[in-house]
Amino acid sequence: MTSKAEIAAFLAAEFPQTRCTVEAVGHRSASVRHPIGEDELRPGGTVSGPVMMAVADVALYVALLGAIGIVPLAVTTNLNINFLRKPSADRDIIARCTLLKVGRSLAVGEVSLYSEGWEDPVAHAVGTYSIPPDAGR
Amino acid sequence: MTSKAEIAAFLAAEFPQTRCTVEAVGHRSASVRHPIGEDELRPGGTVSGPVMMAVADVALYVALLGAIGIVPLAVTTNLNINFLRKPSADRDIIARCTLLKVGRSLAVGEVSLYSEGWEDPVAHAVGTYSIPPDAGR
Amino acid sequence: MTSKAEIAAFLAAEFPQTRCTVEAVGHRSASVRHPIGEDELRPGGTVSGPVMMAVADVALYVALLGAIGIVPLAVTTNLNINFLRKPSADRDIIARCTLLKVGRSLAVGEVSLYSEGWEDPVAHAVGTYSIPPDAGR
Amino acid sequence: MTSKAEIAAFLAAEFPQTRCTVEAVGHRSASVRHPIGEDELRPGGTVSGPVMMAVADVALYVALLGAIGIVPLAVTTNLNINFLRKPSADRDIIARCTLLKVGRSLAVGEVSLYSEGWEDPVAHAVGTYSIPPDAGR
Repeated sequence: MTSKAEIAAFLAAEFPQTRCTVEAVGHRSASVRHPIGEDELRPGGTVSGPVMMAVADVALYVALLGAIGIVPLAVTTNLNINFLRKPSADRDIIARCTLLKVGRSLAVGEVSLYSEGWEDPVAHAVGTYSIPPDAGR
Repeated sequence: MTSKAEIAAFLAAEFPQTRCTVEAVGHRSASVRHPIGEDELRPGGTVSGPVMMAVADVALYVALLGAIGIVPLAVTTNLNINFLRKPSADRDIIARCTLLKVGRSLAVGEVSLYSEGWEDPVAHAVGTYSIPPDAGR
Repeated sequence: MTSKAEIAAFLAAEFPQTRCTVEAVGHRSASVRHPIGEDELRPGGTVSGPVMMAVADVALYVALLGAIGIVPLAVTTNLNINFLRKPSADRDIIARCTLLKVGRSLAVGEVSLYSEGWEDPVAHAVGTYSIPPDAGR
Repeated sequence: MTSKAEIAAFLAAEFPQTRCTVEAVGHRSASVRHPIGEDELRPGGTVSGPVMMAVADVALYVALLGAIGIVPLAVTTNLNINFLRKPSADRDIIARCTLLKVGRSLAVGEVSLYSEGWEDPVAHAVGTYSIPPDAGR
């Protein structure tokens, strides 16, 4: 399995814009963290939806890299997200991904997103990544 | 109908992070534009998926404001996006939204995203916004 | 909490077409079973996609009834399903639903579908039910 | 392009359970019809959600066959459906599909579903079909 440090380095190169950090990488699972501050909030103290979509996408990507190794050019083909509760304005977002399928060309995973320390998720996503054919596995 | 200028001003207040600009607002439709530069690209010259998700979300929001007026606190409850083709690295993303339903409490719309000037979409999204009960319409 | 027998009776009245049976109803969860025979198969021995969509929809409905009681006229507003593996042609489909949110007007749940006895799911769905305002809870 | 009659014959063999008929097949588009009677209704005169999911799936399949020819074993990998309005209890359901992408291994399309003669759709779906690698195109 690919190490957390390798994945964190690769993530920084592939998604240079993201402020997500890798919390853990397990067997077909991963968790990532995103800080919440002024840049992530909408008026009323709601975390912006696109921030949560981005965190869900990164969590899927990190879990995939953990499962199949460092594979450049894997791209999302589908992402479906449901927003469930108003997140906290002053807690980090934690996203936990579990892969449901890791096939030759497609991987599918689900992600639960939490305001750190909360029991109930603030959002839930399911996404598909396309794995390039020359991934050499 | 709410004017394009009113919506642009409200969008800047509600989504202060977005770099989207409003191109047009019509009857249950809208189009928005997002510039593409280093901040939006992944290695290989792909526009980052989260950027396109954010643009789709804003296009839905702008179309909704055009249809029901300036309503604070409308929030996305669901967004589903399919990534169809590799976008251009040096063309703006243009998103065109058509609302499929504008109900009392929920509005649903679809969004086609293009690299400017292309005939075929680079992504397609469908999303639901929840309209607050006290929207006073 | 509503009993399994009450829900089974109501399901038979509301979805008279379904061949699903209720296996279990728990706290914000449910499982249902659907027999697989000639009527559910496509050539090649694949369970027809629409059969699995129907089973996912019923599993969500049963879990919702378990959580909020017998409420007529609750309707699905969104369902997203991913087909993960070819199901067995001679095993029942078992669907296990967990509710992610039970709000005043919307409930969201996820469903994993299995060929009976398999460890990995053959499909995974996420759906939203709209709860009528006069549900009297 | 494959003829409507060829596709209708193949559909009858691949989806023997469906009561859908092929209305038209065009360039990356198709429309299908499903009769509505007691078997498709829930109490209150609502068309059952699973019936509409099945019609959407068939519309996608017919459009795909029209675009790439008679290809056995193409299977749905993802379907997302939004239910927008209560359908009529005594009008056929008409589904119109437009393909958004026809790639080597994946095709994506959107489907609008109508109670026959209505202007506004009763449901809207987006789905992905996986095309088998030996499709010989």
